[in-house]
Amino acid sequence: MTDFFEGIDPIRYEGPGSENDLAFRHYNPDEVVMGKPMKDHLRFAVAYWHSFAWEGGDPFGGQTFLRPWHPQDSMETARIKADAAFEMFRILGVPFFCWHDADIRPEGENFAESKARLDEMIDYFGVKMEDTGVGLLWGTANMFSHRRWMSGAATNPDPDVFAYAGATVKACLDATHRLGGQNYVLWGGREGYETLLNTDLKRERQQAGRFLQMVVDYKERIGFQGTILIEPKPQEPSKHQYDYDVATVYGFLRDFDLTDHVKLNIEQGHAILAGHSFEHELALAASLGVLGSIDMNRNDYQSGWDTDQFPNNTPEVALAYYEILKAGGFTTGGTNFDAKLRRQSLDPEDLIAAHVGGMDVCAAGLKAAAAMLEDGKLEALRAERYAGWDSEDAQALLHHATLEQCEECVIERDIRPEPRSGKQERLENLVNRYL
Amino acid sequence: MTDFFEGIDPIRYEGPGSENDLAFRHYNPDEVVMGKPMKDHLRFAVAYWHSFAWEGGDPFGGQTFLRPWHPQDSMETARIKADAAFEMFRILGVPFFCWHDADIRPEGENFAESKARLDEMIDYFGVKMEDTGVGLLWGTANMFSHRRWMSGAATNPDPDVFAYAGATVKACLDATHRLGGQNYVLWGGREGYETLLNTDLKRERQQAGRFLQMVVDYKERIGFQGTILIEPKPQEPSKHQYDYDVATVYGFLRDFDLTDHVKLNIEQGHAILAGHSFEHELALAASLGVLGSIDMNRNDYQSGWDTDQFPNNTPEVALAYYEILKAGGFTTGGTNFDAKLRRQSLDPEDLIAAHVGGMDVCAAGLKAAAAMLEDGKLEALRAERYAGWDSEDAQALLHHATLEQCEECVIERDIRPEPRSGKQERLENLVNRYL
Amino acid sequence: MTDFFEGIDPIRYEGPGSENDLAFRHYNPDEVVMGKPMKDHLRFAVAYWHSFAWEGGDPFGGQTFLRPWHPQDSMETARIKADAAFEMFRILGVPFFCWHDADIRPEGENFAESKARLDEMIDYFGVKMEDTGVGLLWGTANMFSHRRWMSGAATNPDPDVFAYAGATVKACLDATHRLGGQNYVLWGGREGYETLLNTDLKRERQQAGRFLQMVVDYKERIGFQGTILIEPKPQEPSKHQYDYDVATVYGFLRDFDLTDHVKLNIEQGHAILAGHSFEHELALAASLGVLGSIDMNRNDYQSGWDTDQFPNNTPEVALAYYEILKAGGFTTGGTNFDAKLRRQSLDPEDLIAAHVGGMDVCAAGLKAAAAMLEDGKLEALRAERYAGWDSEDAQALLHHATLEQCEECVIERDIRPEPRSGKQERLENLVNRYL
Amino acid sequence: MTDFFEGIDPIRYEGPGSENDLAFRHYNPDEVVMGKPMKDHLRFAVAYWHSFAWEGGDPFGGQTFLRPWHPQDSMETARIKADAAFEMFRILGVPFFCWHDADIRPEGENFAESKARLDEMIDYFGVKMEDTGVGLLWGTANMFSHRRWMSGAATNPDPDVFAYAGATVKACLDATHRLGGQNYVLWGGREGYETLLNTDLKRERQQAGRFLQMVVDYKERIGFQGTILIEPKPQEPSKHQYDYDVATVYGFLRDFDLTDHVKLNIEQGHAILAGHSFEHELALAASLGVLGSIDMNRNDYQSGWDTDQFPNNTPEVALAYYEILKAGGFTTGGTNFDAKLRRQSLDPEDLIAAHVGGMDVCAAGLKAAAAMLEDGKLEALRAERYAGWDSEDAQALLHHATLEQCEECVIERDIRPEPRSGKQERLENLVNRYL
Repeated sequence: MTDFFEGIDPIRYEGPGSENDLAFRHYNPDEVVMGKPMKDHLRFAVAYWHSFAWEGGDPFGGQTFLRPWHPQDSMETARIKADAAFEMFRILGVPFFCWHDADIRPEGENFAESKARLDEMIDYFGVKMEDTGVGLLWGTANMFSHRRWMSGAATNPDPDVFAYAGATVKACLDATHRLGGQNYVLWGGREGYETLLNTDLKRERQQAGRFLQMVVDYKERIGFQGTILIEPKPQEPSKHQYDYDVATVYGFLRDFDLTDHVKLNIEQGHAILAGHSFEHELALAASLGVLGSIDMNRNDYQSGWDTDQFPNNTPEVALAYYEILKAGGFTTGGTNFDAKLRRQSLDPEDLIAAHVGGMDVCAAGLKAAAAMLEDGKLEALRAERYAGWDSEDAQALLHHATLEQCEECVIERDIRPEPRSGKQERLENLVNRYL
Repeated sequence: MTDFFEGIDPIRYEGPGSENDLAFRHYNPDEVVMGKPMKDHLRFAVAYWHSFAWEGGDPFGGQTFLRPWHPQDSMETARIKADAAFEMFRILGVPFFCWHDADIRPEGENFAESKARLDEMIDYFGVKMEDTGVGLLWGTANMFSHRRWMSGAATNPDPDVFAYAGATVKACLDATHRLGGQNYVLWGGREGYETLLNTDLKRERQQAGRFLQMVVDYKERIGFQGTILIEPKPQEPSKHQYDYDVATVYGFLRDFDLTDHVKLNIEQGHAILAGHSFEHELALAASLGVLGSIDMNRNDYQSGWDTDQFPNNTPEVALAYYEILKAGGFTTGGTNFDAKLRRQSLDPEDLIAAHVGGMDVCAAGLKAAAAMLEDGKLEALRAERYAGWDSEDAQALLHHATLEQCEECVIERDIRPEPRSGKQERLENLVNRYL
Repeated sequence: MTDFFEGIDPIRYEGPGSENDLAFRHYNPDEVVMGKPMKDHLRFAVAYWHSFAWEGGDPFGGQTFLRPWHPQDSMETARIKADAAFEMFRILGVPFFCWHDADIRPEGENFAESKARLDEMIDYFGVKMEDTGVGLLWGTANMFSHRRWMSGAATNPDPDVFAYAGATVKACLDATHRLGGQNYVLWGGREGYETLLNTDLKRERQQAGRFLQMVVDYKERIGFQGTILIEPKPQEPSKHQYDYDVATVYGFLRDFDLTDHVKLNIEQGHAILAGHSFEHELALAASLGVLGSIDMNRNDYQSGWDTDQFPNNTPEVALAYYEILKAGGFTTGGTNFDAKLRRQSLDPEDLIAAHVGGMDVCAAGLKAAAAMLEDGKLEALRAERYAGWDSEDAQALLHHATLEQCEECVIERDIRPEPRSGKQERLENLVNRYL
Repeated sequence: MTDFFEGIDPIRYEGPGSENDLAFRHYNPDEVVMGKPMKDHLRFAVAYWHSFAWEGGDPFGGQTFLRPWHPQDSMETARIKADAAFEMFRILGVPFFCWHDADIRPEGENFAESKARLDEMIDYFGVKMEDTGVGLLWGTANMFSHRRWMSGAATNPDPDVFAYAGATVKACLDATHRLGGQNYVLWGGREGYETLLNTDLKRERQQAGRFLQMVVDYKERIGFQGTILIEPKPQEPSKHQYDYDVATVYGFLRDFDLTDHVKLNIEQGHAILAGHSFEHELALAASLGVLGSIDMNRNDYQSGWDTDQFPNNTPEVALAYYEILKAGGFTTGGTNFDAKLRRQSLDPEDLIAAHVGGMDVCAAGLKAAAAMLEDGKLEALRAERYAGWDSEDAQALLHHATLEQCEECVIERDIRPEPRSGKQERLENLVNRYL
C-alpha cells in the first residue's frame, strides 16, 4: 500500500442532499434501475493512462504532477504506481479499469524485454485483481507514443513496423485474456496521415483491414470471449485518422466483412471533434448493430483538440445513456473515464474528486434516462410520428413500389402532402422533465 | 435572345499575359493536356440554380438581384431565364449545365401541373441544346425547398411524401434522360434530422436505401446510360445529414449493395464543412472506386455555413485535379460550378467574370496537376516510401501471417524498426514547383 | 383578439412535479430569490421577429409556417400579427417584448411611408401595452434585410445609405422612447465585410464610431432614459462583422470614448460562434463595466451558423445567471429570447411550449445561480486562490515594483514558486451540487 | 562547426525554372522590389525553438528527432545546438533569428543559475552574430513550459510568480538589448484560464496591464530602441487566452494607455484559430496603428490546434504581404518562421528544405503583392467604391450631422439608395492576375 491517498476514505453514497465533497450524491451502486443494479448498468472503469501515467504535460509545457511513482522508468516505480491505482479503485469502488501496455510497464530495450516486463506486471495485476475484485474492462496496446509508430502501426509503410504491431497486439491481447478482460480495444492514433502527398490511402486501408482480420482470427484461436472494439477518432495526433467516426468505421468493417466480429468503443470527445453529438454516434452505432462500449469524457466545446475532461453536464449524459438503454444496455461494454485531470489539479484529492463527480453525473444521467424510457412518452411520440407507415399500403409502397407506381399513385390520388409539426421544442421540454 | 448580357462578347483565350478582365488566361479549350483537350478533362458545367434561380437572399436578407426573369412565377419568365442562361453558356463556351426541376419551372398547383411545366421547359431546353451544342451534365430534383419536404423526402415520416419523392425523381430522371444527361444526382439536404428526439435513424436509413434501389432499378429499366450520383454533405439545412461524407455514403452503398451502381458527386465546400480537405474526399472516393463528378466551389474557411464561392486558389484546385487525373479522369462526370455570386455582385458582368475566373483557376490547376503527374517525381517518391512492402517476405507477412508469426519474427530477428523521414516539406516544395 | 392560440390558457406555475406540458415547473414569477421576485431578476422578453415575423424559411427552403397574418404586406395583417403577439404575451405572462421596425410594419414605398406605418403601429402597440401591462425591453432598426443595406448601414460606401440609416435609427429610437422602452439595441449584421478586397476597414470603423456618437447625442437630446446597447456577433450574414465579440466592441467604445454611454447586449449563440463560452462573454463584459442585457438563445454546438434555439440546458444557463447576479443583476437589461422555433414546429402550441420551456430553464438556472452565490463557497474558494495578493508586500509589488525590484527580490529570497492545485474538478463538482 | 548539415551548401537563387530541391526559385535577396531589396522587405528570421529545441513530440507521442545536441540538459549541448543553428542561418542566408531563454540554455536550479546560463549563452551568441552578420529579430521569455507558470506568469494568483516573471523578462530584455535585438515579444500562452470558476478576470487583466507597463518603463530606462510586441492567440495551451486576437489586444492597450508603446506580432496560425483570416488581422492592426511584425506559419484548416506549419500557399501569402506593403512595410518587424517540421521529417535536409520552401513562397507572395500595389488597379477600384464620400456634403454629413438632419435630408430628397455591385469576383480575378 502507498500512502498517496492517505486520509481519503472509501466514497459512500450519501444522497442528493450531501454536502460532503467526497461522497456520492447520485451513484448508489446497488440501487436498482430498470431491473438491474446501477453498477451493472454503468460498469465504470478508470483509465490507467490519464490517471496514473500522464504527468501533466501539454504541447506547451512539461510535467506538473509530482507522484511517488516518478520517474516512470523502472519496474519498481511501475509497481508503486499499480499500488496507488488499486488503492484508488478501492476508494472509488469502481468495478473495472483499463490499460495500455505502455502505461503499466517501462519500455524495454527491445520487444522481448518489453513483453517480459508486461508479463511481470500482468502477474502483479492478477494478484491485486484477485484481492480486490476489480476487473479489467479492456486492455489495449499503445502503438502511437514511441517513435517507431510515428508513421502508423498496421498502416506503416515499413513492414517491420507492421510485424512489430502484430507482435504487440498479440502480447496485449494475451495479457487481456489472462486477466479476464471483457473487451480488447484498438485505437489507431497514428493510423492516418499527416499529408496525402506521401500517403497511399488504398494500400494503407488494405493493411488496416488485413491487420484487423489477424486480430479477430487470433482472438478466436485463443478463445478470448471478450469483444474486439475499434475506437473512432477523426484526427489528432494524425491530421486525418482512418477510423474517423462511427459511419466510417462501419463502412470499413463491411468491406472486410467484420461487422459480426468487431464493435465500437465510442467517445464523447471524439464524437464532438468529428462534428457529431455523442448521442448521434451512439444512436448510429446502435442502429447499425455495432455499439460496444463508451469512453465518457467530454471535449471542451470551444477547444479544437482532445481535452478529455470528466463529464459534468447531466442533461448531455442523460441523452447518451438513453441511447444505450434503448439499445439494451451494455453487454461486455462499460463506461470508461478516458478523462484526465486539468494539469493544474495537482492534489491526490483532485484525482478522487474528479472521478466522484464524473460517476455522479453518469448516475444522475442514467436515472433520468431510465425514467424517460420507462415512462415511454418520448418513444410513444416518436412512434406516432411514423405511424403513417404502419398501414399495409404504406408498407407495400416502401418494400415493393417502383418509381412508376409512385407517380401513378401521386397523380391518381392527387397527393398534396401536408406537413405536421416535428414538435422539437415540446420534446426537449419533455426530456427536461426527467432531469 | 435577351439583352441581359448585352455588350459582352464570347470569352476568348488570350494567354497568361492578358489584361482583359473578360478573357481566359489559362483555359484554352482545345489545348491538349495529357493527350486530351483541356475541355474534355474539365467538362465544365454551369449550375442553373445559383446563377439563374437564386435572387441574392440569405438568412438575414432578401433579394438583391434584379433580373428580367423576376418574378419567377410564370412560364414566361421561365423562358426568359432560359434564354439568358443559354446566352451565358454561349459567352462562356461551357459544354454543360445542370439543373433542379425547381430552377427551371414554376411550381404548379399539384404534382401533375408541376410535371407538365417541367416537360414543357424540357422541350424548350431541348431545342436550345440542339442549337448551341451545350449538353446536360446532370439533372436533379429539388426535394428540399418546398414545405412538403421539410422533414425529408425519401426519409420522411409520411409515406405520402415518400411517394411524392418517387414521382418527382421519376419526372426528373425522365427529363434528364430525354436531354441526354450524363449523370443524375441525388443530394439529400433534408434527408437528415433536426433532432434525434423525434427521429428513428434506423428506419429512415432503411427508407433511403430502398429509395435509392428504386432509382437504380428505374434507371436500368429506361436504359439511362448516365451515372447515378450521390452528393455528400454533413449538415445544412439539416442539423445532420445522412450522406455526411464520402466514407459515410460508402458504408451506406455497401449496406444496400449499390457500390456498382452509384458513384459520388463531391463538393469542395461540403468536404470542408465535414472537416476534410477536398483532396481527401477525392482520394478516398477514388480508392473506394466511387469517384464520379465534382462540384468545384470553395467554402470560406472562416464561415461555418455553405458559402458556395467560385474557386480562386490555384494550389488547392491543382491538388484536386491531381487526384482526379491519377484516378483516370472523369468519365461521365465533370466540373460543375455549384457556386454563387456574392449577393452584392449585382451586375450581369459579375456573373460572367465569376465563371471566367473559376474556369481559369481550374485550367491552371489542371495544367499543374498534369505536369506533376507526367513528371512522375511525386509518385516515385510515394512508391519509394512503400518499397519495403515489395519483397516476397513482406507480401507474405501482409497476406498470410498470423499474430503468432509476427511475434516470432520480431523476436527472432530482434526487429527494432528505424523510422524514416516522411519528407512532407520536401514534397510540398515539389508540388509548388509545378504551380 | 385572434383565435390563433385558441384553447391555450395562461400558463401557471405548478411546481417541479407537474406533468402538464403547458405549465411552469420552475418559473414562479413572484417567488423571491435573493430578495427580489424572480420575474424582476429575469425580465423576460419575447422577440417579435422570430416568433411572429419569421415564416420558417432557411437558406435551402421557403416558408413552412401558415399564419393568419400572412402575407405580411399590409397594415391589416400587421395588426392581426400584433393581436396574436399580445395574446401570446398574455398567455406566457412575460413582462416585455422586443421588435425591429421591419417586424411590425410592412415596408413602404419610401422612407416617409415606412415611417408613417411604423408610427401607426406604435400607436397600436401603445394601446395594447397600456391594456396588458407588457413593456418594451428594447426596440431596434432592421438595417440588414432590405437590399439597400446589402453593403452595410452606417459603414456603407454610399453616404445616402448612411443618411438613411440615421433617419431610420431616429424613427426607431423615437418609437422606443414613446413606448417607454428600457433600452435601444444596435446589431450590425451588415456592418462588416464580405471581402477585404473592396473594403476600407479604417474608414468604415470611423463611420461606425461617428454614427454611434450621433445616436448617443440624439438619445440625450430627447431625454431617452434607456440604455444604448450594442450586440456583438462575429459573422453571419457578413463574413466578418465589426462588432465581433465583447472585447472587440469594448476596444471600439474606448476609441470613441463611449464606454460611459453604451453597454452590450450579449447573446449565447453569438458568443459560441465567436469561439467563446457565454459565461466568458458575460464575465468579461461585467469586468469591463459594459454588461447590459442578454439574448438567451443557444447555438447548436455542431452547427456553424446562427441556430437561435431556445435554451434547454440548465447547467449552462445557471453559469450565465451566476455571472449576471455576481455583477449585480440587470438594471435596464433583461432576458430576451432571440430564439426561433425549428421550422418544422408548425403549431401555435409549439410557440407557446418553446417559450415555456425556455423560461423554465432560465428560472431553474437562476435559482441554482442564486443558491451558489448565497452559499458563498465558490467565491470563498476563488478568493482563497488569490489570497497571496492580500499582503502589503504583494500589493506594493503589484502597484509600484520595477523589473529591477522583481529581479532583486527573486534573487535575494531565492524564490522558487511552488504551484498549488487549481481544483477545477472540485469546483465543477461544487457547481453541480446546486443544480 | 558541427557536421549536422554536412554536404548541404549555402542556398542560392536559381530562378523559377530550377529543378534543384535546395535552391531558391523566387527569393533573390538583393533583387529590388518597390525600391528596396527583397531581403529588406521580408526580413526573415528562424525560430530557434521549433527548429532546434523541439524534439518532435506531440500530445500523443514523444521525441522523434535524434540530434547531436540531445539531451538538452547541459551547457555543452547548448553550444552544439547553437553551432548547428548558426550553420543553418549561414546556409539559408537569413538575416535574423529569434529565441526564448528556455531554447538556448538549460534550466538552472534557481533563477540565478538560469540567468547565469542565459548570460553565458548570450556571450556565445554575440560572437557568432558578430562573425556571421546574423541579427536578432526578437528575444522573448518562455513563461509557459515550466510548471511554475502553469497558472500564468503576470496573471498568476501567486505574487511570487509575478515577481519571478518580472525578473525573467528583465533578464531576457537585457539579453535582447545586448544582442541588438530589433524587438522584444511577449506571448502569454498561460496568461488566460482553464476555467472561469477559479478565475478573477478583472484582477488578472489588471495584473497583465500593470506588468506590461513595467516592461515598457524598463525598456525606456535602459534605452532599448526595439519595439515591444504582444502576440495574440485565442487559446492553447490555455482554454482562453487574454490576448485573444488583434481587436482584444487593442482594447487592452487602450485601457492601459499603451498604444504608443506596444505593437503586435501577428501569426497566421493564431489568426485562423481565432476565426479570422490572416489578412484580416494584419489589416485591422494596420488600421489601428499597431502592426509590428509577423509569424509566418500556417495552421492546417482542418485541425483545431496550433499546427505551426511552414507556409506553402502563395496566393494566401501574397494577400498578407499586400496588407504589410500597403501599411508601409516593416520597420523593426520582420517575417519570423514560427514553424516546425512535421514530426516525421527527421532529416537535417528536411529542416533546410522547409525553410527554403517557406522563404520562396514568401518571396513569390511579396512580388505578387508589390506588383498589385504598384499597378494600383485594386486600390483604384477600392477608392472608387467610396467615392461618394468625397463630396463636401458627404463629409459634412459624416462629421457634423445629427440624426434629425439625416431624417430631414432623407425625406426632403426622398432618398432611395440604389445598391451598386461590390464586384467581389472581379476583384478576386484581378488578384489572381498578379500571382
